[in-house]
Amino acid sequence: MDAKPDVDGRRVCAELDKLATFSDADPPDVTRVLFTQQDLAARAYLKGLFAEAGLTIRQDAVGNLFARWPGTEAELPAVATGSHTDAIPHSGRYDGTVGVLGALEAIRALARTGLRPRRSIELIMFTSEEPTRFGLGCLGSRLLTGSLDPQKAGQLVDFEGQSLEQVRSDAGLEGAMASVRLPAGAYSAFVELHIEQGPILEQEGLDIGIVTAIAAPATLRVTLRGAGGHAGATLMPGRRDAFLAAAEIALAAERAALESGSADAVATTGFCRIHPGAVNSIPSRAVLEIDVRDIRLGVRDRMVTEIRRAAQEVAGRREVTLTIDTLNADPPAECDPSIVAVVRAACAGRGVSSMPMVSRAYHDSLFMARIAPTGMIFIPCRGGISHRPDEFASPEAIERGVGVLAETLYRLASQ
Amino acid sequence: MDAKPDVDGRRVCAELDKLATFSDADPPDVTRVLFTQQDLAARAYLKGLFAEAGLTIRQDAVGNLFARWPGTEAELPAVATGSHTDAIPHSGRYDGTVGVLGALEAIRALARTGLRPRRSIELIMFTSEEPTRFGLGCLGSRLLTGSLDPQKAGQLVDFEGQSLEQVRSDAGLEGAMASVRLPAGAYSAFVELHIEQGPILEQEGLDIGIVTAIAAPATLRVTLRGAGGHAGATLMPGRRDAFLAAAEIALAAERAALESGSADAVATTGFCRIHPGAVNSIPSRAVLEIDVRDIRLGVRDRMVTEIRRAAQEVAGRREVTLTIDTLNADPPAECDPSIVAVVRAACAGRGVSSMPMVSRAYHDSLFMARIAPTGMIFIPCRGGISHRPDEFASPEAIERGVGVLAETLYRLASQ
Repeated sequence: MDAKPDVDGRRVCAELDKLATFSDADPPDVTRVLFTQQDLAARAYLKGLFAEAGLTIRQDAVGNLFARWPGTEAELPAVATGSHTDAIPHSGRYDGTVGVLGALEAIRALARTGLRPRRSIELIMFTSEEPTRFGLGCLGSRLLTGSLDPQKAGQLVDFEGQSLEQVRSDAGLEGAMASVRLPAGAYSAFVELHIEQGPILEQEGLDIGIVTAIAAPATLRVTLRGAGGHAGATLMPGRRDAFLAAAEIALAAERAALESGSADAVATTGFCRIHPGAVNSIPSRAVLEIDVRDIRLGVRDRMVTEIRRAAQEVAGRREVTLTIDTLNADPPAECDPSIVAVVRAACAGRGVSSMPMVSRAYHDSLFMARIAPTGMIFIPCRGGISHRPDEFASPEAIERGVGVLAETLYRLASQ
Repeated sequence: MDAKPDVDGRRVCAELDKLATFSDADPPDVTRVLFTQQDLAARAYLKGLFAEAGLTIRQDAVGNLFARWPGTEAELPAVATGSHTDAIPHSGRYDGTVGVLGALEAIRALARTGLRPRRSIELIMFTSEEPTRFGLGCLGSRLLTGSLDPQKAGQLVDFEGQSLEQVRSDAGLEGAMASVRLPAGAYSAFVELHIEQGPILEQEGLDIGIVTAIAAPATLRVTLRGAGGHAGATLMPGRRDAFLAAAEIALAAERAALESGSADAVATTGFCRIHPGAVNSIPSRAVLEIDVRDIRLGVRDRMVTEIRRAAQEVAGRREVTLTIDTLNADPPAECDPSIVAVVRAACAGRGVSSMPMVSRAYHDSLFMARIAPTGMIFIPCRGGISHRPDEFASPEAIERGVGVLAETLYRLASQ
């Protein structure tokens, strides 16, 4: 391109710091769960920034937020970019947010050049990429891309028994959930900037990861119902302790990953709740949520099968009732070779080093790839750490990533 | 005695039903945790009943409630009776409450006879027999009997980080915690009426269990600190998952009980909390509470030793940091043979069947036995079920138990 967009990395970091203050945890921890007061306050802050940048703002019925910088031929399908700003309990300030505030700075930097590409560029802040509240991640991008039935989405319930339909209405969102789905051909391309959430770029001393494929998790919710009772007065024989069954199943999930034969295979029991949860009462109910991943669908599905088999064996032996709900089991996605090529050219244009890589974490890109040619730009994060308060990406890394994103968006919007 | 006290079992049951409405759970579940609004409302209801019965009411600095029916020689040490009214989450309506409302009816029935014994009879509603809020049971009776340092008691903190000192002050309780301790010789005897919380009386078809000894639990709080991280991006080797360590330790506790060689040995992991508790995040912290019991102190302590050993092995192997706090480890108590003899005589006097038995559950009697000759009267409960919403004792069983208690109290107060 003719004039290099001049990216202000410090400004992005200042905005990331400000965004981190919208949180239900004490700093440095960040907790920002869908449609809580803090999430709504964060959304208001972002809308203010988008408006200040002169972007055209739209919000859909599930809270996906769109901010458009019009191109000279505004009737053409736009180039889209974006990520999410919700944060799992006690996590950090870079996951998702870099792809939203970074995209905003990319658009501002492009606008500052005085050039204006043919296609509009649209920034999307996706609703609830994290599965924290409703057990299912990527709510916004699933609905946008027709990957989730709008009626089923509305009926999802959180742990307090509130439906998504209810909480989005309480958040002031109107219109039918079915209206969220984008028309075919809405975007000519989608590109997401994100921290790597892994150690490879740091280890290799490289600036940018150009994502070629995105792994997808299968998520199982395992519910065990046994028999409660007084911890002192109920003797061991004949107990039907739901938590002990859950403990065995969590260990079986770990074993399924370790024995899968794939170095990429992971299985994590990140959620466990037991009822009634009193020290002197035998657990009558336990709920686990297990996240299972591999880059290869076949390996992942074999792990899921093994976890289900083990759960059934444990439940039968311990005489507890077992229910397994598949919360999601999406296939992995390939990034579009044409987008990969543009990102590579943008890296070369900016003079930054890069390597192709796969994303072990999933992202809204997983679903956007179903409706538009999609690519992802990764930047290094310290120690590969993510989903923790000590998650960190340097201002320099962020600035380089935003520069590559700006150049990529400009090239795509000029096509 | 000259005139048999005529006990009104239906009235006790109606009062039990009313008391069950003070609850933070939907019926039939009862949840009544120390110094919550519902607990305070239940206390107000009880005070009203005590006042209506003409009893002299006193409340101490930790909320133990005393209601006295004066004897003809009011300067003599009184005979005490009572139990607790707090209820663990999602439990039933009979545990503890039968010993409070039953004692009230016993006193009312004695008063109706027109007779008045030498000694006063004092009903005690003990504060927080259940360990729900502060992790330590029998707070009231421990403090009454000098079994817990008042300063340490005040510093106990609940899961929201509030101290007992703070929450009792918020509940309007004044005076130093040290003032709770009773003077030596305050009572000539203590008798507690309670549901059995086990199946033996029902299986044997007997009316009354005369308790000869009370088992005591050891309670361990096990805290594991590992390393969190993204469930997708963190590969299995090198993970330090706190929950998987916890799962192994809960299973080790079960094994310690099963392999103890004692049929009475029980070990229960009734509480588990993991952090951050998100499906796509590796647990960085897990807290377990484990309840370990046997009638014989030696057997119980060997189980505790084995659980500690196993926890250390697991923590070392999984490279997580282990902390074990002993929340309590009280010795079992013997009931006083003279009280046992009076209860036996009372059963005979009322024409009800009885058998001697041990209490596997612990009670405030465990501590009252340290300052007064103590006994317990058990009534059958359906299926031996307790700490569950379907806990049930029949009106007939309650009426018989209250009758035996009334006769026992009268005999002891006449001595």
